[in-house]
Amino acid sequence: MTTTQVTLVQIDNYGPWTVTPEPRREMDLQTLQSRLFADIAEYLGHRDGYAFFTRFDNMITVTNGIDGDAHATLQESIRNRYPVTVSLGTAVSDRPVDALEEANHRIQLEGSAQDEHRTEVLAGEYLTETTPSDLQIAHFDVVNATGKYTDRLNEFDTFINIERAYASLMEYLREAHGALSFFVGGDNIIAVCPDLNESAFTDAVDHVMNDVDVDLQVGVGRGATAHEAGFAAKHALEDCRHDGTSVEITGVPAPTD
Amino acid sequence: MTTTQVTLVQIDNYGPWTVTPEPRREMDLQTLQSRLFADIAEYLGHRDGYAFFTRFDNMITVTNGIDGDAHATLQESIRNRYPVTVSLGTAVSDRPVDALEEANHRIQLEGSAQDEHRTEVLAGEYLTETTPSDLQIAHFDVVNATGKYTDRLNEFDTFINIERAYASLMEYLREAHGALSFFVGGDNIIAVCPDLNESAFTDAVDHVMNDVDVDLQVGVGRGATAHEAGFAAKHALEDCRHDGTSVEITGVPAPTD
Amino acid sequence: MTTTQVTLVQIDNYGPWTVTPEPRREMDLQTLQSRLFADIAEYLGHRDGYAFFTRFDNMITVTNGIDGDAHATLQESIRNRYPVTVSLGTAVSDRPVDALEEANHRIQLEGSAQDEHRTEVLAGEYLTETTPSDLQIAHFDVVNATGKYTDRLNEFDTFINIERAYASLMEYLREAHGALSFFVGGDNIIAVCPDLNESAFTDAVDHVMNDVDVDLQVGVGRGATAHEAGFAAKHALEDCRHDGTSVEITGVPAPTD
Amino acid sequence: MTTTQVTLVQIDNYGPWTVTPEPRREMDLQTLQSRLFADIAEYLGHRDGYAFFTRFDNMITVTNGIDGDAHATLQESIRNRYPVTVSLGTAVSDRPVDALEEANHRIQLEGSAQDEHRTEVLAGEYLTETTPSDLQIAHFDVVNATGKYTDRLNEFDTFINIERAYASLMEYLREAHGALSFFVGGDNIIAVCPDLNESAFTDAVDHVMNDVDVDLQVGVGRGATAHEAGFAAKHALEDCRHDGTSVEITGVPAPTD
Repeated sequence: MTTTQVTLVQIDNYGPWTVTPEPRREMDLQTLQSRLFADIAEYLGHRDGYAFFTRFDNMITVTNGIDGDAHATLQESIRNRYPVTVSLGTAVSDRPVDALEEANHRIQLEGSAQDEHRTEVLAGEYLTETTPSDLQIAHFDVVNATGKYTDRLNEFDTFINIERAYASLMEYLREAHGALSFFVGGDNIIAVCPDLNESAFTDAVDHVMNDVDVDLQVGVGRGATAHEAGFAAKHALEDCRHDGTSVEITGVPAPTD
Repeated sequence: MTTTQVTLVQIDNYGPWTVTPEPRREMDLQTLQSRLFADIAEYLGHRDGYAFFTRFDNMITVTNGIDGDAHATLQESIRNRYPVTVSLGTAVSDRPVDALEEANHRIQLEGSAQDEHRTEVLAGEYLTETTPSDLQIAHFDVVNATGKYTDRLNEFDTFINIERAYASLMEYLREAHGALSFFVGGDNIIAVCPDLNESAFTDAVDHVMNDVDVDLQVGVGRGATAHEAGFAAKHALEDCRHDGTSVEITGVPAPTD
Repeated sequence: MTTTQVTLVQIDNYGPWTVTPEPRREMDLQTLQSRLFADIAEYLGHRDGYAFFTRFDNMITVTNGIDGDAHATLQESIRNRYPVTVSLGTAVSDRPVDALEEANHRIQLEGSAQDEHRTEVLAGEYLTETTPSDLQIAHFDVVNATGKYTDRLNEFDTFINIERAYASLMEYLREAHGALSFFVGGDNIIAVCPDLNESAFTDAVDHVMNDVDVDLQVGVGRGATAHEAGFAAKHALEDCRHDGTSVEITGVPAPTD
Repeated sequence: MTTTQVTLVQIDNYGPWTVTPEPRREMDLQTLQSRLFADIAEYLGHRDGYAFFTRFDNMITVTNGIDGDAHATLQESIRNRYPVTVSLGTAVSDRPVDALEEANHRIQLEGSAQDEHRTEVLAGEYLTETTPSDLQIAHFDVVNATGKYTDRLNEFDTFINIERAYASLMEYLREAHGALSFFVGGDNIIAVCPDLNESAFTDAVDHVMNDVDVDLQVGVGRGATAHEAGFAAKHALEDCRHDGTSVEITGVPAPTD
């Protein structure tokens, strides 16, 4: 049984800010957004959490093991260094999408994303204990993406293929299992999953192949934090690459200490 | 008639680097990738170019008005500050996808993206003159995205809707017109277009509505650089927001001395 | 009685790297150095530590409450995101300079700063318990620096005055007490001190006035971490500003829990 | 005859901001300041200018060849990405300190550095032509700093020696010649000079040896931009290192094209 803690990071009133008093330069916005995401990924990553850029103005993060004080410090630090502030909603559930739904609801209750008086919501519940089976993370990539796409097509047509695979997989895993899947660059997709067995991942790979004709492989790991589970998944994916298998699953690690 | 200069930025041999000697921490990779993109967006943006993160290991950029020396300085600066290097291929064409195809080909000719001996390719042709009609850029967003999605659904389900709209639009504009469309965060999509008239944009908006039931609006601008055209597009999109129209096009600006 | 944990961060073999194969662009080096420092300040700051840029290739940090695992994660993260690596030596003592001496010695034992085979030293001892009296930090600034200098002189001549005050104070506190003082921008100097009473700070302020004719004021705080002690010092300095006093000392905070 | 264009970058009303509504975390301020400096160094460096961090809230930069539009873009970009804004004053003179004096005066005329209503001053004159003899830059370092200091002393005592050399040199060159000298990390000092001959540099090196017993060497270069002159200086300093000489001067480069 998984227990996933999800934090939604939402920039307060960002849309109106980007066009006030007139539209801001697009590359300034891109630089701001990607540096803000980088800071959040660095901050949570150093605490063994995971952050995904999603839409940049709303970022979904997995924060098992990271408490309310650490969330408050992150919020304060962003206020001190950026021209924008962020709201943080956190919740815990066995299905990742349910945790997000509740985390998101906590922010929505306080007002609209474009309500200029709703700033720096900090609401949530945080796990006080973690166990090595709390998270299951799957790391997918495309079999031989460089040979089949990158070195042969133009980058946009390569990107179309990767996007199709991502769109197909994200909707499938969301509907079938309440998992949250994120494109993380290159040909890589990371899915934060509930408790799924090998056949569920085989079905997902088959679904994408049948749906959009892109050949995926996937490594799956468990752990007490996103980093632990994700790192095990990366190692399992290396096994796929070396052995030519489609799905490699690493079980719950033995408890340490 | 448009004339678009496209530069493909490709991190050299990045895939192997991310797993050598063993997989690197995912959040370190996310931080590295998004900061590298931020630097490139800042560098090109300050020269009135546009950069899109695309797959992060391959970034598509629009570089009208930016010469070979400036490309060489960017390449050198990345080598001096990052653990990775980049190759840059540049080409010019009236259709954006044709410019990218040729730019990409110049890098592919020198070796695979995962060839450890192919580093820092710098190849291309650069426009020596620019005219105010060179670029046509369209800035799309979703009508009332905050009210319909962000404030009502959980962020992942919101994201699914935005992704569907993006996937539908990017493939349509690529196939119909050779345009290159990029998701830039929130509910915003920027398309680098050949010479298209108002009905072409109306058709695109209609296509997405019929295909995935998401309601888009679009502002379109022209200019000698990506920033000029894109800034005009942003202002036109403001007009859509204020007037409730679906398509607003700003023509070629009068030449300034 | 104070107990200060000091970590020396030394970039490995940095001097030779900056001129290999030929000198690198100075502004690339400045950007690299200041971003590396920013990352370290952010990382340690979020754990209630303090980092000082010092010479940039060698940075002195105060790391009470930050354990060996967190140091290892920082070292790994820098390796993954920069073209350089760092060595980290840590030690604990009642006098800050003695802690630094020992921390530094642990790195020197492994080889020269310019030995290309000595990389990523990670050596040290880390406090396993902290108490609210462990750190004493003093935050100095110049009385009315804006009115006397910034608004009247050119910036270089202002800087000469601030530098003189810093040089005078840093040498005095080092010799008299084994304290470590750092210029942190503007007209601010932060000193990491052993257990000193009010008259010691009055003497320091008098020394600088007599030596270089610059008028300082100082707030002093205690705490279990650099942030706690430094934050109390900032509040005490605010009292100096409001009350026109030269020295304000906040005692050891009552234990929380 | 040299012609130096100097731009003063001053953060608007920064002191009050750092303590409003209460003191901000010191490491957030350090991160903010060093990233802001990094961005400015990157921006100006890519245009062959030089930026020095000086006091971080006031930064002195050398901007030969960078026009008013580029200054305006920098100012706008900072406003769009930081919680603070900056004022920019620019002037030109043969003596660097005179250029700074005038640049600084242009900002001071508009109000105090702590006047909350004085924001984003953009005032100055910009060179419209450059010649290869415009700038003379000297790059000093300490002879065998690693062997004499870094590998033997603790870092603070090493830093005291480097600081003494810097303080001695900066005051001497300011008084004797109106040159502006900046510590740039490690054991490196960069001086922006008027037209000085070899004996002037020999005298400076001798002064520091006699004053504080630190042994310097210096490479000197000329160029149309700070980068050109500074890069020639770095190469000249390499000659000092290889040949054991104290002063190496590279003359005015032959005009290109």
